[in-house]
Amino acid sequence: MALPQSVKIVEVGPRDGLQNEKEFVPTRIKIDLIDRLSAAGFRNVESASFVSPKWVPQMADGAHVMAGIARRPGTIYSVLTPNLRGLEGALAAQADEIVIFGAASEAFSQKNINCSIAESIARFEPVTQAAKAAGLRIRGSVSCSLGCPYQGEVPVASVVDVVERFAALGCDEIDIADTIGVGTPKRTREVFEAVTKVFPRERLSGHFHDTYGQALANIYAALNEGIEIYHASVAGLGGCPYAKGATGNVATEDVLYLMNGLGIETGIDLAQVVAIGDFISTATGKANASRAGKALLAKARSEQTPCV
Amino acid sequence: MALPQSVKIVEVGPRDGLQNEKEFVPTRIKIDLIDRLSAAGFRNVESASFVSPKWVPQMADGAHVMAGIARRPGTIYSVLTPNLRGLEGALAAQADEIVIFGAASEAFSQKNINCSIAESIARFEPVTQAAKAAGLRIRGSVSCSLGCPYQGEVPVASVVDVVERFAALGCDEIDIADTIGVGTPKRTREVFEAVTKVFPRERLSGHFHDTYGQALANIYAALNEGIEIYHASVAGLGGCPYAKGATGNVATEDVLYLMNGLGIETGIDLAQVVAIGDFISTATGKANASRAGKALLAKARSEQTPCV
Repeated sequence: MALPQSVKIVEVGPRDGLQNEKEFVPTRIKIDLIDRLSAAGFRNVESASFVSPKWVPQMADGAHVMAGIARRPGTIYSVLTPNLRGLEGALAAQADEIVIFGAASEAFSQKNINCSIAESIARFEPVTQAAKAAGLRIRGSVSCSLGCPYQGEVPVASVVDVVERFAALGCDEIDIADTIGVGTPKRTREVFEAVTKVFPRERLSGHFHDTYGQALANIYAALNEGIEIYHASVAGLGGCPYAKGATGNVATEDVLYLMNGLGIETGIDLAQVVAIGDFISTATGKANASRAGKALLAKARSEQTPCV
Repeated sequence: MALPQSVKIVEVGPRDGLQNEKEFVPTRIKIDLIDRLSAAGFRNVESASFVSPKWVPQMADGAHVMAGIARRPGTIYSVLTPNLRGLEGALAAQADEIVIFGAASEAFSQKNINCSIAESIARFEPVTQAAKAAGLRIRGSVSCSLGCPYQGEVPVASVVDVVERFAALGCDEIDIADTIGVGTPKRTREVFEAVTKVFPRERLSGHFHDTYGQALANIYAALNEGIEIYHASVAGLGGCPYAKGATGNVATEDVLYLMNGLGIETGIDLAQVVAIGDFISTATGKANASRAGKALLAKARSEQTPCV
């Protein structure tokens, strides 16, 4: 199969990335981050989460963030909605897309939300019905698609099953998420080969974490399966809650560098994203986790101060 | 093309990795590192450099390192030899393999050694003749194969030309080296497709740097071209002299994790290598640059102290 000629990069840093930050990131910084990202060319930015602030205090200002950003025409601003209350928040905030989620691992589902996979997804039915009625886009995220911190191996059939359940709920897009970054290219291809049989290839996305350094190899593997949507987090924002000090979401800069090298169109300006990665790393006081970002920043700095 | 069933991993940390360390690493640490690596299953360890100590003070103790290690039967201990004097050192140290090198970039060759590519490789002729006569293996390393810090793009034909010159000198193995880590999978495949036409596939190796985060994607691309030898540096030892603070050699742990996930045999125990990465990072006082290494160390530590 030929590689896609263009891909959509969904920037998840403002939500999936920042969510793991312990120190509260000021609302104005979140707004600034999202506005810089849409200006750099991202057509889809995961921007907030309408989850109880008791669970995720970092996301408590979702309504203010959504109210403060400068909406760029054509850009989809997504928000996470765990329940009907979250959907109310999403509607009030005029989000373009809601994100619902379920694990492909029974052990993860039981441990995290104390119910079966099937039940956890069935609970979203009133949410998706109301979202559809309101004309919102719906994205379903299948966590633990390539492995689980509790049960280890996750059968491909379980991923297919969750994809079918999300499809039945009317999801417009479905993410195959390697939540803990344990996947490698062989399993990535097997999973995408299986799920493309039950859901349209062009509406499936790859959400990879770089915890074991495999994310870019997995993205290259998924490209070879014809997948056209990828998630990434600027400066690699967000760690891994299952391995302290380990890497989380794949860095957007690294993904863009890959796509540029493969001649695959993204519509996003890498140099601008490198600058945004520098901005948010400085603002949060965290080390920039993007290798391409760090290399390009180092190069730019050395060119500004030539050796004498 | 089916992926190889097994690969050889050449561990380059003790030479290519440590060479970039500013702080001198004690000889006994270098010896300990090499012995741990051969015990973990590496069949080829790049161990020292017989280059003038004025150029690379970190490698000044090569003779003592080679004299101090416990030779494991079947393991190839390689040393870098820039000239006949270096070869004398290699012979005295009873190295198994010498490494010679040349750039595929004319600008790099001129800037670094002030002569043309052709001339730089011709200079190795007395070295390779003497090495052959002494029964040593010879490896040729083609630097800047995927890009150059001075001229940028490097033509595929230039890489092929250097490979042919090394082949004519009697090289047993030839490395396609992405010295500054700028390559991506498309160019990686193009280069290997071209060089396999002039040199046996099974004696070509991929030497990737992770400066832009592309190394594992490039290795997966090279596996798809049937390449069976890869270089890696434990804990990602060694930075990038062309971009301060950026990542250097791809980390061995990440490469082994990839191979294990693909079901490709390496003969090397990942858990042992993770422990070696921890040992050398602690000994050098440098952050462990292996993502798989950091994640596996974090996991092991959390299992030792379970949450209560």
